[in-house]
Amino acid sequence: MTRKIVAEALGTLLLLAIVVGSGIMGETLAGGNDAVALLGNTLATGAGLIVLILIFGPVSGAHFNPAVTAIFALRGEISVAGAAAYIAAQIAGALCGVALAHAMFDLDLAQTSLKARDGFGQALGEATATFGLILTILGCARNRPEATPYAVGLFITAGYWFTSSTSFANPAVAIARTFTNTFSGMRPADAPSFIAAEFIGALIALALARYLFPKPQSGA
Amino acid sequence: MTRKIVAEALGTLLLLAIVVGSGIMGETLAGGNDAVALLGNTLATGAGLIVLILIFGPVSGAHFNPAVTAIFALRGEISVAGAAAYIAAQIAGALCGVALAHAMFDLDLAQTSLKARDGFGQALGEATATFGLILTILGCARNRPEATPYAVGLFITAGYWFTSSTSFANPAVAIARTFTNTFSGMRPADAPSFIAAEFIGALIALALARYLFPKPQSGA
Amino acid sequence: MTRKIVAEALGTLLLLAIVVGSGIMGETLAGGNDAVALLGNTLATGAGLIVLILIFGPVSGAHFNPAVTAIFALRGEISVAGAAAYIAAQIAGALCGVALAHAMFDLDLAQTSLKARDGFGQALGEATATFGLILTILGCARNRPEATPYAVGLFITAGYWFTSSTSFANPAVAIARTFTNTFSGMRPADAPSFIAAEFIGALIALALARYLFPKPQSGA
Amino acid sequence: MTRKIVAEALGTLLLLAIVVGSGIMGETLAGGNDAVALLGNTLATGAGLIVLILIFGPVSGAHFNPAVTAIFALRGEISVAGAAAYIAAQIAGALCGVALAHAMFDLDLAQTSLKARDGFGQALGEATATFGLILTILGCARNRPEATPYAVGLFITAGYWFTSSTSFANPAVAIARTFTNTFSGMRPADAPSFIAAEFIGALIALALARYLFPKPQSGA
Repeated sequence: MTRKIVAEALGTLLLLAIVVGSGIMGETLAGGNDAVALLGNTLATGAGLIVLILIFGPVSGAHFNPAVTAIFALRGEISVAGAAAYIAAQIAGALCGVALAHAMFDLDLAQTSLKARDGFGQALGEATATFGLILTILGCARNRPEATPYAVGLFITAGYWFTSSTSFANPAVAIARTFTNTFSGMRPADAPSFIAAEFIGALIALALARYLFPKPQSGA
Repeated sequence: MTRKIVAEALGTLLLLAIVVGSGIMGETLAGGNDAVALLGNTLATGAGLIVLILIFGPVSGAHFNPAVTAIFALRGEISVAGAAAYIAAQIAGALCGVALAHAMFDLDLAQTSLKARDGFGQALGEATATFGLILTILGCARNRPEATPYAVGLFITAGYWFTSSTSFANPAVAIARTFTNTFSGMRPADAPSFIAAEFIGALIALALARYLFPKPQSGA
Repeated sequence: MTRKIVAEALGTLLLLAIVVGSGIMGETLAGGNDAVALLGNTLATGAGLIVLILIFGPVSGAHFNPAVTAIFALRGEISVAGAAAYIAAQIAGALCGVALAHAMFDLDLAQTSLKARDGFGQALGEATATFGLILTILGCARNRPEATPYAVGLFITAGYWFTSSTSFANPAVAIARTFTNTFSGMRPADAPSFIAAEFIGALIALALARYLFPKPQSGA
Repeated sequence: MTRKIVAEALGTLLLLAIVVGSGIMGETLAGGNDAVALLGNTLATGAGLIVLILIFGPVSGAHFNPAVTAIFALRGEISVAGAAAYIAAQIAGALCGVALAHAMFDLDLAQTSLKARDGFGQALGEATATFGLILTILGCARNRPEATPYAVGLFITAGYWFTSSTSFANPAVAIARTFTNTFSGMRPADAPSFIAAEFIGALIALALARYLFPKPQSGA
């Protein structure tokens, strides 16, 4: 179990270093064209996520995401104690990942974001993003487990562009991004509604996945 | 069958949310450089389509497209009643997907596009796009079924750039995009020629696929 | 054999429609930023090539390229008569593909390029590009045949950026691109040195592949 | 063994031609927008690296990187003499690759970079990049060897954006890039700290991989 916790912490740390670091690089180089910055941010996040799931999936399942862990706990695939340990590791790892990104770019390690991400539209974006992410994970788990790393990376690639919130889709990411006043940051005051929307989207996906991707019946 | 209908409706809903939402994001951020906006729109659509086919393919076949469903009906792989239900679900899902994209970006849910997409060149573009899409689907079905999700996503990625119409290649998409006055929209008056061109391209592909990708002969 | 010839002609036609069409789209939308135009051109060509090889590979081998066909003839994997028919089909298909791209974008079907692509550097670029392409094909054929479509598409994706000539790497493409006065065009006067460089690069790759990727010895 | 040395030299040569060549192309076309130049540089490097590992992996293991070779020597998977020969071939190949890129773009073959890449942040970036690269290689080797080419290419794709140093992650690359005064260059004075940071990152990854990806126990 310790090995799994380490994998979750390290994987989430690297995920946040990728999300925040590539946002800083994009914003620094793009000369004010946020679409170009977002292209670099998207490419790095999608590619990096595929790699992290490829290498940590066989160790811990590569959740890196409290919403994912909560869904697996509700499905009985991880114990409540295990889920609590996973989530603590994810949040701690995420915060360290933000600090690593700041250190790499010679910025203050501890920051507070001033970027507003609020309103009903963005909350709906987060719910949609997390709904799609959980549906992707559960759909692949049922029918194409070997495609999961690629499907998750590609879903987030799409999500960075099609959702108004740019698809955090992850409560640990939402918390961690309040601690960076760079391209990928979000005001602390906006985190609660993002996190609530993420869990709502995840729960809807859980229910729908039971219907869409039923387990094969015994004896079938 | 109900599960398949739900999968077609939900998949097409998410497809349109991706197509329209990423167009809005691109246009908003790109500062007037439509090529940069189209890069984001392309990345999201290609990546998202791969994911949707990966997860819904084993449920409903992941048509999300009346032209695809019509071709499978002509090949006898789906009944006429089944095809009608699929197509109704696709169109309904597509319209809901446009509304979801609008809601995420705090725009009016119901809009009418003012963007002209007309002329012989664009109709030829749509015929070419749908020809290529159907050839991709039937070629993979015959020889490499496991590659279908990736091939379809990559074909549309190419199509967004090489066809003058940016490859709607899908009558449900054509209808739905008349209801958004954003980057991906199209005037209602232009939809009929797009849809006609799509079916013409699809039928040519069907004929050619019979020749290029014949079924193995029994006894062989 | 007729089916193979049709596949080579149609595949090369679609390849040129993709190369030339996405160049026109990129140049039209990018507002003078040729790097952005080349990104779109690259994305379309790489993605489209993967799809074309996936669907036509099992039919004809998906050469679409006289240099590739010549190498397979030198290796005794296709007859001289067969190779001649392949090459004729590729060139005819390539020319039709350029015309299709022009028709889709409402341009004159027959054009002559005025864009200079000359000098030792660009010839070296073509030799390097074709060397790399043939090495990719022969290396995959020996060890990872199922990865060939992806490897070829990814090699050309890289080649569009790392070679000074943007990697035509294909005599049929070189000929056809003299007939379009758009982003991807090349003056007719420059084609001979491109084509010569392509065959030189291909022959070096053939020799080196014999050494690097030897056939397993019989009895082993 | 000679064949393996040739593969390492040729592979690293092509890798540097890709890295340096696509940087020149990007800088030339992007009109001063370094983010757009980096997008092209990234796309070419990631795609090219996947191809090089696909074709040379079965021959030599496709290290192309003294840090990778050193790690495999420490794990006892290559002899010290073999590792020395690999590393010499990689450095020689890398230098030739830079010269090839210069020749393709009609630039002076021998150059010295004037671009500063220094400070603690960039060294931390290199350590992080090489840590991640080695973890990717060892994680895939343990659990998903067939995914290694894709995982390595995708990790470097992410690394170009999320690390402040743009992820050289390779001492042969660091040395070679001091010899080009173009987009991808680095002052000779900055190479030692990059190389030291790379080996430190690699050693940390080696230690952590022993814990995270243990070999299955005999008898299990």
